[in-house]
Amino acid sequence: MGISSDPARPTVPVAFKDILAKKHDGGELSAEEISAIVDGACRGTMEPVQIGSFLTSVYLNKLSQAETSTLTLRMKESGDCLVWPEDIQGLTIDKHSTGGVGDKVSLPLAAALAACGYKVPMISGRGLAHTGGTLDKLESVPGFTVSLSHDQMVHTLRQVGCFIAGQTKDICPADREFYKYRDATSTVKENGLITSSIVSKKAAENLKALILDVKIGSGAFMETVEKGRILAQAMVDCSTSLGMSARSLLTDMNCPIGFMTGNALEVAESLQCLKGQGPKDLDDLVVNLGGHLLNLVDPVAVKSAEEGCARIQERLSDGSALRKFQGMLEAQGVSPEHAQKLCDPDGDVWSVLKRSAHQTDILSDRTGYVESVAAMPVAKVVQSLGGGRDKPGDPINHAVGVELLLHVGDSIKEGQAWVKVHHDFEVLPETISAQLRSALVISESPVQSSQSRVLEVVTPTGQA
Amino acid sequence: MGISSDPARPTVPVAFKDILAKKHDGGELSAEEISAIVDGACRGTMEPVQIGSFLTSVYLNKLSQAETSTLTLRMKESGDCLVWPEDIQGLTIDKHSTGGVGDKVSLPLAAALAACGYKVPMISGRGLAHTGGTLDKLESVPGFTVSLSHDQMVHTLRQVGCFIAGQTKDICPADREFYKYRDATSTVKENGLITSSIVSKKAAENLKALILDVKIGSGAFMETVEKGRILAQAMVDCSTSLGMSARSLLTDMNCPIGFMTGNALEVAESLQCLKGQGPKDLDDLVVNLGGHLLNLVDPVAVKSAEEGCARIQERLSDGSALRKFQGMLEAQGVSPEHAQKLCDPDGDVWSVLKRSAHQTDILSDRTGYVESVAAMPVAKVVQSLGGGRDKPGDPINHAVGVELLLHVGDSIKEGQAWVKVHHDFEVLPETISAQLRSALVISESPVQSSQSRVLEVVTPTGQA
Repeated sequence: MGISSDPARPTVPVAFKDILAKKHDGGELSAEEISAIVDGACRGTMEPVQIGSFLTSVYLNKLSQAETSTLTLRMKESGDCLVWPEDIQGLTIDKHSTGGVGDKVSLPLAAALAACGYKVPMISGRGLAHTGGTLDKLESVPGFTVSLSHDQMVHTLRQVGCFIAGQTKDICPADREFYKYRDATSTVKENGLITSSIVSKKAAENLKALILDVKIGSGAFMETVEKGRILAQAMVDCSTSLGMSARSLLTDMNCPIGFMTGNALEVAESLQCLKGQGPKDLDDLVVNLGGHLLNLVDPVAVKSAEEGCARIQERLSDGSALRKFQGMLEAQGVSPEHAQKLCDPDGDVWSVLKRSAHQTDILSDRTGYVESVAAMPVAKVVQSLGGGRDKPGDPINHAVGVELLLHVGDSIKEGQAWVKVHHDFEVLPETISAQLRSALVISESPVQSSQSRVLEVVTPTGQA
Repeated sequence: MGISSDPARPTVPVAFKDILAKKHDGGELSAEEISAIVDGACRGTMEPVQIGSFLTSVYLNKLSQAETSTLTLRMKESGDCLVWPEDIQGLTIDKHSTGGVGDKVSLPLAAALAACGYKVPMISGRGLAHTGGTLDKLESVPGFTVSLSHDQMVHTLRQVGCFIAGQTKDICPADREFYKYRDATSTVKENGLITSSIVSKKAAENLKALILDVKIGSGAFMETVEKGRILAQAMVDCSTSLGMSARSLLTDMNCPIGFMTGNALEVAESLQCLKGQGPKDLDDLVVNLGGHLLNLVDPVAVKSAEEGCARIQERLSDGSALRKFQGMLEAQGVSPEHAQKLCDPDGDVWSVLKRSAHQTDILSDRTGYVESVAAMPVAKVVQSLGGGRDKPGDPINHAVGVELLLHVGDSIKEGQAWVKVHHDFEVLPETISAQLRSALVISESPVQSSQSRVLEVVTPTGQA
């Protein structure tokens, strides 16, 4: 019947309405139906109002594992995939992180994996809001370019073994469409949509193996292990269904990683790590993520994650990862002189990287032990300093940031400096000091710092 | 944190995103938030993708009674309301039906209510798909216009007491926006959205009392009493909260109402009803809906629905309703001569109304008793004949239709004609005959026809 007094209905493609009705009513969409949606979103034949309806229905009714895999595959196929020559094809591996504060793991890890003989075609993103992206960090190195042609990518993988570049317009255009709409409709945080967004782009890199770092904690997208485990499982299973060997580590993201948060500061800390002098927690993450990945891509040669960890540790200690990083810098536009200065174990990276105009220490008002430093206020301060973006395309100040002088477990005295703010203000605004002070929790009794940020390992469903 | 590798987000109005997030997560929206949405949809500041998200979130999470009332009020306020002079104001009453097959109740009912001294400013709709709208039926009368200016409305209410006109662009523009999008996103069938769409338009008529006919059965939007009761309750409570006295009747809509389905045929049958010779089930509906409405608008003067029913029956029997209908036809553009011919108890309405070129009887292939005639196939046949629209704006053939020759309970013999098809085909297509045959169910044993189509009365929550 319809409702007789309702105004006349417009004519719209019947298929999309039917697919939406099925999803609204709890049905599982077929591969054809999901293909029609991805196609419609890319070609503009599906109206925005219908895309909003689809995303919201998925947000509330969820996607099955089969729907997630199909959506991911179709999103990957919506654009170009990176095709590698035979000598590279079987060796491509990569890491993805759901995003953390002070998370510069990609920089030393890509180089360490290249030093193990693998090929790392890392396509990365820019930061938004309080998070700095890997590309932004690397762009604090003068001359570094994130735009590589496919020929340059192949050349760099052959000569060096890794690159870290930006996404091109032609990779996963469907993801760009969906993400724009997910943001506008507050449907970003749905596991199936997160999974398809992340895995489609990694699948387009044509990888043999992928390690997924799912961050857990107050400074992360996922606040609990329970929630993180579900997302990790979805991503691992989806990656596997698309032909990649995959595993995920759930890692602690309550305190910033390492001591440095801010673009140039994080490059400097990455170089420390590559020189064998990195902070313990950063080393631990690089070694664990890399170790699992080596075991994953070639379980015959690397029989366990522990064996893989030892290999990564070796590459960080013997300088071979550092030389790969130097090679990557040069291959991506940094002058040999600058690259050399940055990667000289005794060189001063600040002769190349830009320092902020001012450094201000903040002092503790109590004596005790550092129980925690909350990541989120630190990240927000970096954004306030100009180290992050409010909206896409905003310029970024690479020099500013927050340098922790103490870490969890350290003893602290009243009046002792515990954080150094790198900023370009004449006088550091009190709001920023206050925000940082709110991040520090001091205990009267000694605090044990955890040995590793790795909380749990998630393997594909059905695998031991 | 976000998901670091997701593409950059566009900047969109933060408020809508926040409202959507609240609704997605099961929150109840405030009056301000609902106002913002209605405003955004009307002014175009809310993106279509966000409107699609809102409608889908509402479809899946439902609207509370408070949310429904606010949405309805804001939709009403999105456009013009009909303002009546003092002599009309306190007397305005109307009926709304969720739509049935052969449902011509509005025609005799409006006239009967006017004959009781009330004012019926009936704004009605056109039909789509297999349902014919009240306006389409009336337009089968030569000269009848559904476009009335406000002055003409006031004049007609004063002179006659009722009019049946089309919706103007300025009434409830928000409903038009939402309905267009509800259709495209398969979110039409949600009680809160149905309620707000229907009640906002009735509230814009500035009514004192409203009776809601909620159709139940295979030929209706709502297939079960349980579902219909929930919708009826929502509409009654919402109408009450907007200041109208309201009640709903759940009525049986398995078989077509009366014998006639098709535009001119239904006008002819309405005139029979107004002449005291209508089919029993049509009379019963008109009398019951009208009787409850009289009791509702003035419970002092009309102490019960039964008393109201008797008054309506009287107006149908004494010719006073017929004279009101004649007056309405003239007030809405029909020549006095035509109006007179149509309303002459001994006149031939087919000297004014257009007949189809051909009539074809369909014969029964069995002997027994009519157990049921399914409304939906009958409605679809009328559409196939040209009596309905495939899309808005399509022309309509007023002359065609289906005339039942028997009703539920009647005995039927093999070879006996049970339905007459009024059509303009040279030869009636076999597909149409077959579709009609599928509608007829014959029982070997006698069938009791029900005394009334009224299944249940729904009063406002908290009222006896």
